[in-house]
Amino acid sequence: MAPAVPRSGDAIFANVERVNAELFTLTYGAIVRQLLTDLEEVEEVNKQLDQMGYNIGIRLIDEFLAKSNVTRCVDFRETAEVIAKVGFKMFLGVTASVSNWDTEGTCCSLILEDNPLVDFVELPDTCQGLNYCSILSGVVRGALEMVSMKTEVTWVRDMLRGDDAFEFQVKLLKQVPEEYPYKDDE
Amino acid sequence: MAPAVPRSGDAIFANVERVNAELFTLTYGAIVRQLLTDLEEVEEVNKQLDQMGYNIGIRLIDEFLAKSNVTRCVDFRETAEVIAKVGFKMFLGVTASVSNWDTEGTCCSLILEDNPLVDFVELPDTCQGLNYCSILSGVVRGALEMVSMKTEVTWVRDMLRGDDAFEFQVKLLKQVPEEYPYKDDE
Repeated sequence: MAPAVPRSGDAIFANVERVNAELFTLTYGAIVRQLLTDLEEVEEVNKQLDQMGYNIGIRLIDEFLAKSNVTRCVDFRETAEVIAKVGFKMFLGVTASVSNWDTEGTCCSLILEDNPLVDFVELPDTCQGLNYCSILSGVVRGALEMVSMKTEVTWVRDMLRGDDAFEFQVKLLKQVPEEYPYKDDE
Repeated sequence: MAPAVPRSGDAIFANVERVNAELFTLTYGAIVRQLLTDLEEVEEVNKQLDQMGYNIGIRLIDEFLAKSNVTRCVDFRETAEVIAKVGFKMFLGVTASVSNWDTEGTCCSLILEDNPLVDFVELPDTCQGLNYCSILSGVVRGALEMVSMKTEVTWVRDMLRGDDAFEFQVKLLKQVPEEYPYKDDE
């Protein structure tokens, strides 16, 4: 059997089951609206959206690894590129770019110029502190934690607040070495 | 210009923007979980999901009419068929069937055997009264209200409770004749 090679995000996206993006966008909008009503504080809504994303990410990573044929990344730089180019494409149908690396290679930004979550969305003045897309950074945080990378995510730019792109910073806090309960050659 | 003809759900679904179905499924799961935590009463969660669906439906109808080229249906029977065959396909990628008509042609069931909302979902014993997919019936209710049909929706069967299909009843309560502010030939 030929060895599995990583597949492009486009190729995977073309073959997975999908639903209409507008339905997804409106459903996500309904969640945010619900949380704003229930929790009142915008900062609490940000936290909750991030936590929801985290819970999704720790499950979505399985589908990602199963369908993408991506193998172990050599470092955090490669990991970030794979998330941006394969992960985002595979799930949202858009790609992100990676930039603003620190010198240690442990902190970078993921930048989205096209983002299906925000079609038709306008924030009222009362929601100016809202990080509407916190679910996305939460998904990334959750997925990375399942491959032993503890990260912190912070929103930097948001088109809903008038910025020219969506940008969140991903900072690697701790990388837990994977321990196998058995030796590779057993 | 050739007259617009209604397009099949398949053809529309193939051409609209889409997102990964698993992301949608997990996101929807996160909403339900959040509502169960916040509202505690399963009956309240059912109502809230229906209301969210309603809010989505009153907006999704625009996309449906714009993309489907569907024109005025002659009666409620035809409307139900269009929802089942074109609407469900266009948004969820699956088709529903219509059955259990009453003799007046004002009440029927929409039946789904394949439903991307419930992949990987199992209900704990504490949630047995939950109509997990209430958002779907809410969407139908909201969309119909925008084309002047006031309906009542009721869940009848649910595969998460061990039934062999998902079924909800749609009962036409009132059909408001559309009034134009102008005459057709003006």
